[in-house]
This record gives sequence, C-alpha cells and structure tokens, in this order.
Amino acid sequence: MGRCNKLSRGLSYRSPPLVSLDLPDDWSSNSNFTHSHSPPIHKCKGNNESARIIDGRSAAEEIKSSIAIEVSRMKESIGKVPGLAVILVGQRRDSHAYVRNKTMACHEVGFRFSIAELPESCTEEEVCDALSNYNKDASIHGILVQLPLPQHIDEGKILNVLSLEKDVDGFHPLNIGNLAIQGREPLFIPCTPKGCIELLLRSDVEIAGKRAVVIGRSNIVGLPSFLLLQRHHATVSIVHAFSENPEIIAREADILVAAAGVPNLVRGSWLKPGAVVLDVGINPIEDPESEHGYRLIGDVCFEEAIKTASAITPVPGGVGPMTVAMLLLNTLEAAKRALGFT
Amino acid sequence: MGRCNKLSRGLSYRSPPLVSLDLPDDWSSNSNFTHSHSPPIHKCKGNNESARIIDGRSAAEEIKSSIAIEVSRMKESIGKVPGLAVILVGQRRDSHAYVRNKTMACHEVGFRFSIAELPESCTEEEVCDALSNYNKDASIHGILVQLPLPQHIDEGKILNVLSLEKDVDGFHPLNIGNLAIQGREPLFIPCTPKGCIELLLRSDVEIAGKRAVVIGRSNIVGLPSFLLLQRHHATVSIVHAFSENPEIIAREADILVAAAGVPNLVRGSWLKPGAVVLDVGINPIEDPESEHGYRLIGDVCFEEAIKTASAITPVPGGVGPMTVAMLLLNTLEAAKRALGFT
Repeated sequence: MGRCNKLSRGLSYRSPPLVSLDLPDDWSSNSNFTHSHSPPIHKCKGNNESARIIDGRSAAEEIKSSIAIEVSRMKESIGKVPGLAVILVGQRRDSHAYVRNKTMACHEVGFRFSIAELPESCTEEEVCDALSNYNKDASIHGILVQLPLPQHIDEGKILNVLSLEKDVDGFHPLNIGNLAIQGREPLFIPCTPKGCIELLLRSDVEIAGKRAVVIGRSNIVGLPSFLLLQRHHATVSIVHAFSENPEIIAREADILVAAAGVPNLVRGSWLKPGAVVLDVGINPIEDPESEHGYRLIGDVCFEEAIKTASAITPVPGGVGPMTVAMLLLNTLEAAKRALGFT
Repeated sequence: MGRCNKLSRGLSYRSPPLVSLDLPDDWSSNSNFTHSHSPPIHKCKGNNESARIIDGRSAAEEIKSSIAIEVSRMKESIGKVPGLAVILVGQRRDSHAYVRNKTMACHEVGFRFSIAELPESCTEEEVCDALSNYNKDASIHGILVQLPLPQHIDEGKILNVLSLEKDVDGFHPLNIGNLAIQGREPLFIPCTPKGCIELLLRSDVEIAGKRAVVIGRSNIVGLPSFLLLQRHHATVSIVHAFSENPEIIAREADILVAAAGVPNLVRGSWLKPGAVVLDVGINPIEDPESEHGYRLIGDVCFEEAIKTASAITPVPGGVGPMTVAMLLLNTLEAAKRALGFT
C-alpha cells in the first residue's frame, strides 16, 4: 500500500487511513520484526553537529496549495466550497491570534469562513445557540469552538452539542474513542497530532516500533498524540506533571513530542542523541526588542536541543502552521463527505 | 476525599470516581510533588524472598458479598433485581467457560440472568436482533457480547447497536472516549482494567507518579488499562508486538500489567526488583495430569517472577475473578441508574 491517503486525489498529504495501519499483534515474530528500511535520521549526532530543522511552514504551504486546487475543482464541478465556522468567546489575546491565523488560511485556500464572537460574559445557552445554528447551516462543513472557554462555561457540554460530522477538531468523545480503538477510524483526527505525524512521515522518520514519549496529556494535544502514535505502532509513553524523573523518560525517546505548555521545559539533557523532536509549545515571553513586546518560544530549549537531536521543529514555523493546514484538510474532508464529492 | 466510591453505599469497593481524580497539570511544582506516603510494597526484594501474592479470589468474594447485600436491599425496597444478559455465539471452549463463570456469579449475588446462544453460522442480523431485544427488555440492565465473535461478524457493527446505558463491558467507543478524556467520566469502565486498579488500591500500591507498563494493546484489556492507569496519574507506557526491546521497557515498570495473551512471555529478567505484577493472561496449556487435560497459566512466568516482584497476582485466582466481580458491579450500577435506586 502506498502512503497516499485515498482522500487525497492530487493532495500533497501523506498520512495513510488509520484502519489500514492496524496490524495483528503477532508476538511470536517479535524478534524477527524487520523494518522495511533503516531510519534515515535516527543517527547519533556529535555535539558540534546541528539538528536538521523540520520546516513546518513550507510543508503547510505545500498542503494548502493542494487544498486550494481541490477547492477550485469542487467549485467548478458542483459550485460549492468548504465552509468553516469558528465560535470565539471572550478576549484572550492568544485565542484571537489563533483565530486570525485560521481566518487568513481559509481565505488563502478559498473556503467560506464564518465567525460567531461572543463576549466573555455570555451564557452557556448562547454558545449552544450559536453552535446549533452552525450545525444546521448547510454551507458550513466544519465548526470549531476556540478553546479554552471561560471557566463558567462547561466545555464538555458545549462539545456534546457539536455535530459529529462537523467536529473538525476531532475532540468529540466518540471521535477520541474511535481514535483509541484498533479497527475503528474517527471521522476526524485532532489537528495538532495529525500535523505531527504528517511532519514525521514527510521527514521519513520511522514510527513503528520506535520509542515515542509525549510530554503533556492535554485533551487537545498530548492525549490524542499518544493515541495516534500508538495507532502508528510506536511504543508510546506519556509523561505529565506528576511523573517522577520526566527527563529520564524523555531520554528514552526516539521521537519526542513536547506539549506541556511550559517554556523551555525540555533541556538538551532530556534528549537521547539523534532523537526527533516535535515542539508543540507556543509560549509568549516578554521581549522588549520584538515588534509586539513579546515573542513565541516552544517547550523545548531550542539552542540546546539542536546539538543533540537529529531533527527538530522550530517555534514558530514548526507544528503551528501544520495544525492550521490539518484543520483545513479536515474541513475539506468534511465538505467532501457532506456533499458526496470525490 | 476518601477512597470510597459514592455509588458504593455499603459496598466493599475502593475505586474513586474518575472525575475526582483529575488534577491540574502544574509543572512548576513537579520537583516538589510529594506523595502522601511511601509506597508500602515497592521494596527491592532479594532473590530468596518471595513476592506477596495478591489474592484476587478473596477480594472478588468480598465484593460479591457486598453486591449480594445491595441486591437484597434493592429487592426489598423496590421489588426488583439487576439483570444481566449475555450473547454467546459459537462453540469456543474458552468463551463457554467464561460465560459459565459469569452465570454462576450472577446466581451467587441474586441477579437475573439471561443468555442468547447463537450458532457459529448465524448472521450479523441475528446477533443484532438478539441485542435489540435485550436493549428493549426493561428487566435487563447490562448486556455483554462475549468476544471474540466469529470472523464473518463485524464486532464494531454489533457493539454500535448495544445500548450505551447497558454497555457494562464499557467497550462502546463513547465509553472509551470518555475514559480517555480528562474531565469526563464513562458510564462504565471496562471490567478487567477496573479489576486491576481495584487490586492495586486494595494492596495499597501507590499509582500516581509511578511508572506503569502495559504489555499488550487489545481493545478490551491493554488499551483501556493504559487509559485508566493514566487517569490515576501513573506514567504509562504501552508495549506491543512491534515494540523493540520489550523486556527493557518492562524493566522500567513499578507496576506491570501483562495482557498479551502469550503464556510465560514475561520472564523474571523482565521485572524491576520490587515491581507489582498484574497478570491478565489466561492461557490453557496441555497437562495430562490435570482433570480436564489442560491447566491455565498466565502471561508471566510465575515461578521466576515471585523471586523479583514485590507482589503478583496468580493465574488462576488473580485478575480473573476480579473481572467477573467488576462486571457484576457495573451491572449493579446500571440497574441503580436505570431504576433511580440509590
């Protein structure tokens, strides 16, 4: 089987369908399990060498270009385009920045885009109403509720209202359950983990059989990253704030996903030489010399990590742009499914 | 908060509600994270010492006794008892043995029990029909489909028909999703993982922060065990047939759950001295001296393991009886919920 997704006619996108990845657990052949090729970048690097930078921005641009082509084809063929709606509550600066990125990306690829902005003080009912309207709106194929919501709003309750067919973030428990269970396939895979896997595949990093360590167990990144790496047959460990000796566990990783939301948590000494590092953290830190008075750094101490890792995603320009590209891809899939367009 | 489950008025059952376990991931305090008490049985044992045997049979008896008392109280109070139904397809000897155990357990605690036996050659539709009948039957509060089903029947399709409120095995993707997601609580926790945690709690084994390794990633034991241990704040790794060097990973475990279904896979050399070992394997091996010509052994080489582990479940008499006790507990919960009985 090739690596091209069946949904990706002409699309530059490598993740194979999950179900196709399911393999029988044949323990008898464990010692004979041979990989089709040696991992090309899991080489031990000397301290003076520098890790390869995994360029998420250019990968995302490539994916967006092919999505734009698909959108044109759809428009010409059936006169419709995919539609994404965002529900944004309150004034969090980071949430507004994320939504701005998503809006721009939608325009870039020719999606219809709609936003419902609600004040911090709004009620759960008002959020549900906005959501229900988008659920019913046939021109909207994907809906995302920008998280986190204000504390007085029950996230779980809101996500339960979201139509499963439009859950392009993949956070509905039924989607997460189907991501966890071998033999099943969720309608949508959460965007950040999907972007991480896509970067690994594009970088020819072997996943099956390798040790992967996910740092952080959030419902939106850490947990689904664990589940997805597991479906790709990595041997996965999940480290969280209560883990004893997290650095020792991290050092076992061939593939490290840092998603704790703690700036520079992962030091060079946390890495196995030659590890592949995906830095999901996007942490603003004050920087008077920057245009806006702050700049973004990751969960990984980049300067230290490039001396030990074999490959690493930068922040910004690594996992972030891929998350947005995967959101577009999920929305395109949702639209194709809803409109019966192949 | 105490360790008694709120559902367990008078019930001898230790697992706290999952949601109560959710903790904020405060990384800043990681180095200061102090455990309320030292783990009482994580002591390094010399080669001549012998592990403590975790007696699953007597724990299960204790739980069943308190379930029987609850059933009497329910019968006296509202004139009803919990009802469990099993769908059994084909003639697999192991499946028939498991179902026989469940039948006996139901009789022991005073549950109503019903079984639909279908021939190996039955159609998917016939299984779905039997399931639908039990879905509608108000005297049945829990339904389980004895797995595995014959190959021509799509397990996923069958489980989708099962009423979520009666899914006492906890295998529905929505239950698995809610088991995975922090802040949510599944209606039912799969019986074997639930039994494992119950044994750990009863044995005063600390889980939070400890390294747990689950060997095997089946949908019915390995995967939900990972998810449940994670909700209890262990640092969990999952090892499967494609894992490289499984014995090295196993040796990192403070708590080892062996659920590969491979007799004696886990040797003494796979264990960290002082590890707590839960052996989920139930493998029949030929034994001309046994009454039935075979006897059951686990996934762990017991004779070797007792020299290195600090505590271990035997096979039989360890996790097996607890699985049945947890099934009864889930069915009791289902009945209480359906009948509004507290």
